Amino acid sequence: MHVLILGAAGMIGRKLAGAIARSGNLGACSVARLTLADTVKPEVPAGYSGEVSILARDISDPHAAPQLLAGRPDVIIHLAAIVSGEAEQDFDKGYRINLDGTRYLFDAIRHLSQTDGYCPRLVFASSIAVFGAPLPDAIDDTFMAAPLTSYGTQKAMGELLLQDYSRRGFFDGLAIRLPTICIRPGLPNKAASGFFSGILREPLAGKQAVLPVPDTVRHWHASPRAAVDFLIHAATMDLGPVGHRRVLNMPGVSATVAEQIEALRRIAGDRAVALIRPEPDPDIMRIVSTWPRGFAAERATALGFRAESSFDEIIRVHIEDEMGGVL
Amino acid sequence: MHVLILGAAGMIGRKLAGAIARSGNLGACSVARLTLADTVKPEVPAGYSGEVSILARDISDPHAAPQLLAGRPDVIIHLAAIVSGEAEQDFDKGYRINLDGTRYLFDAIRHLSQTDGYCPRLVFASSIAVFGAPLPDAIDDTFMAAPLTSYGTQKAMGELLLQDYSRRGFFDGLAIRLPTICIRPGLPNKAASGFFSGILREPLAGKQAVLPVPDTVRHWHASPRAAVDFLIHAATMDLGPVGHRRVLNMPGVSATVAEQIEALRRIAGDRAVALIRPEPDPDIMRIVSTWPRGFAAERATALGFRAESSFDEIIRVHIEDEMGGVL
Repeated sequence: MHVLILGAAGMIGRKLAGAIARSGNLGACSVARLTLADTVKPEVPAGYSGEVSILARDISDPHAAPQLLAGRPDVIIHLAAIVSGEAEQDFDKGYRINLDGTRYLFDAIRHLSQTDGYCPRLVFASSIAVFGAPLPDAIDDTFMAAPLTSYGTQKAMGELLLQDYSRRGFFDGLAIRLPTICIRPGLPNKAASGFFSGILREPLAGKQAVLPVPDTVRHWHASPRAAVDFLIHAATMDLGPVGHRRVLNMPGVSATVAEQIEALRRIAGDRAVALIRPEPDPDIMRIVSTWPRGFAAERATALGFRAESSFDEIIRVHIEDEMGGVL
Repeated sequence: MHVLILGAAGMIGRKLAGAIARSGNLGACSVARLTLADTVKPEVPAGYSGEVSILARDISDPHAAPQLLAGRPDVIIHLAAIVSGEAEQDFDKGYRINLDGTRYLFDAIRHLSQTDGYCPRLVFASSIAVFGAPLPDAIDDTFMAAPLTSYGTQKAMGELLLQDYSRRGFFDGLAIRLPTICIRPGLPNKAASGFFSGILREPLAGKQAVLPVPDTVRHWHASPRAAVDFLIHAATMDLGPVGHRRVLNMPGVSATVAEQIEALRRIAGDRAVALIRPEPDPDIMRIVSTWPRGFAAERATALGFRAESSFDEIIRVHIEDEMGGVL
């Protein structure tokens, strides 16, 4: 099997490529060839014995997609996107990359499908950013996409394209709406959602963290490990039972910030919790107030997608995967 | 006020232009100038004393939108589209006109908004084709768009763009999802929905009509007159109370084919009903089975949109507007 990962230099892309490289497999299938693409050259993952191609391509270049598909990958995992904050700040760039880039990719597959019967599995990383307030406590599987950001709009449009192209038989697509990924490894960033990870990651490393919202704020989370598992399952599962509705809300953990902090206390003690400094930020509070608080992700759960079941587990995953198992 | 109608040569566009021409108004506002555009030159409506511009333009030509906006219309009513059947048959044409054409229009407005502060009211005619089975008996205002046609996909994508562009302040947009228009005047056509009108219009004119589905089929209807009223209300109402969710399911009449036929019997007698010939068509039955059966259009109703309240009324509107009031 030949797997193409678009956006392979990003956090999730690197972890996914690493998981494939370590096991040599995607689910139960052996991966003989791996093509990793991003705007900058992704690293070759350690320990992979198959053939690897590394490509620096911008999907918003109409010529990129045919080159990315030259090796006729059996599975395409499309993670390439500019993030929410940047898409909001740079309107043209957001539509160019997140919408036009996705459409160029889909159309390049369509042309191959019409000329030589090519029909890959395509997994599109969508986001709970397609939802905007007012929202119920538990968003069900038939709740409408009504985004309040350009990023969410672009993701929702990509989902619609994916469903139409799949219905037409151009590819066999599945869009998965990822929860907010927590705990994101790496340095603190300025994303409005950054604090959800920061208030855990930084204290676990003995560093201070800022909490810009009240601890009553509730949100929807899954670990980077769960996100990689979602993508692998989406890439390999039987799509027969999914039918025409090729967009799934992923499972996750609905937790308040206070519940996150109590999980941190159970695992790392009062000293870690004392490193969190409340510093209310009205801008971040306003943005976060429009976000989902939780989901009833019944379809995805019935289809075998699994996330963590508590924030304790999310923290333990971080300690295992990012801190060598040592606190 | 200057009003631009795109798709002004279509059935609804002609009726809307006619209504503006007769009254000289759009809602409570006097219309000093009317620009009517379509791929073929629309007719000048009778009785209008203001300035009229007639344009033949294809919105899928990137140069068309700036020309259409040259007179800085205060209100733009965007009805231009290729219909469901054609968008399904010709994939490229459907996306080119219904998606790219809409985006060219929205982007041309955006560029003017950014250069000279232009901010028109924009009404986008969407459709209940954004919904696909399985569906509840009464679709509520938060039910997801999951189209089963490329046309429905393109309309849903246009809605998303409209909401993002409105949120950004490029224009003041509202998308209205029209019910199936019944009774469509004119000749029988091959649209899968054509029989809903045909089984009434033809017998009312003393002609035979074919019924391709069981009379238990339920669907969602409004008259051409109601559609024009929706557009006028959408173009002139206060959008403050609408908030960021700029897509509304329009009210209508949910009726089975049997209920349609009984309304025909009450108004035109058994002789008219006897002109309906059942001729089951499995293809049409399959398509229609995926369509909405009804809506709880609470938001639109609360915002002042009004449709007919029975099929008797829908038939009487047809007799008044299309048959000179005489059966």
